[in-house]
Amino acid sequence: MSKPSDPVARADDAARALARHLMALPHAALAFVDPQTATPGISRIAFGLAADGTPLTLISALAPHFAALSQTPDCALLLGEPGPKGDPLTHPRLMLRATAEFVPAATPDREALRETWLAQHPKSRLYVDFADFAFVRLRPRAALLNAGFGKAFHLEAADLLPGAKACET
Amino acid sequence: MSKPSDPVARADDAARALARHLMALPHAALAFVDPQTATPGISRIAFGLAADGTPLTLISALAPHFAALSQTPDCALLLGEPGPKGDPLTHPRLMLRATAEFVPAATPDREALRETWLAQHPKSRLYVDFADFAFVRLRPRAALLNAGFGKAFHLEAADLLPGAKACET
Repeated sequence: MSKPSDPVARADDAARALARHLMALPHAALAFVDPQTATPGISRIAFGLAADGTPLTLISALAPHFAALSQTPDCALLLGEPGPKGDPLTHPRLMLRATAEFVPAATPDREALRETWLAQHPKSRLYVDFADFAFVRLRPRAALLNAGFGKAFHLEAADLLPGAKACET
Repeated sequence: MSKPSDPVARADDAARALARHLMALPHAALAFVDPQTATPGISRIAFGLAADGTPLTLISALAPHFAALSQTPDCALLLGEPGPKGDPLTHPRLMLRATAEFVPAATPDREALRETWLAQHPKSRLYVDFADFAFVRLRPRAALLNAGFGKAFHLEAADLLPGAKACET
């Protein structure tokens, strides 16, 4: 079985469509820098999209990643889960590199995000207004899509979020 | 709704049992340090247990986390996936902090791990012997179990791996 010298291709239309499909999932794994040890940490997060397509999450100050993202906004997200059958590495998944931006409470901006979020996560109405919960934008810098063995693609922020502002890198 | 001042409890027997149940899953999300940017990276990995209960994975040199773990062995794993219904944050998941140890090829040690791995991941027989694949032990340092809102537990390595050697921290 031969292997290409660069196993990762530039995204094509099918890759962009698959990436956006994965970004419609309601949860993700988040990699962050643990503020106490400066080593990697990981959490499950609820995941959604703002009206402009920017990835969004809602987190509690009790969660380990709240303090972590407050101190080090660089993070990474994994979207896409294996099904119950087959090799888990053949299932598509998207790895996003992102920068976290906390949304201040009691701003009109938060109100708009709250409505968009609740349409995607109606069960979070139970706690969305707790004082220790905050919305956090996760602005993509770049992404890697793995659509199965030998099918990996680089994506830029513009591939993920047509019309959305991306971080400068 | 009141909140405890320390929301994370010391593990009890039920927490240890749930943690070990989650460690029987065949895949995990891995958080690592990207060697090019020194920012967080994340990947899906195949997951298994060595005969002594040590977490184990099999990775290709083409995967981004291969170079990352070679340079920085500190990593974190997330085990446990939400079901199709309900709030994804109410589903149990285990966050492991671990240290990666590559297993040298062509050692008796690798042969034993290979047999144990193939019993858990029979489909990986297709590529397990490719020259660019390596087994990596992921020795736990500590863990956090989240069994749903308000049900979080600290675990030590001994809680996860009875009889297995854990890293000194």
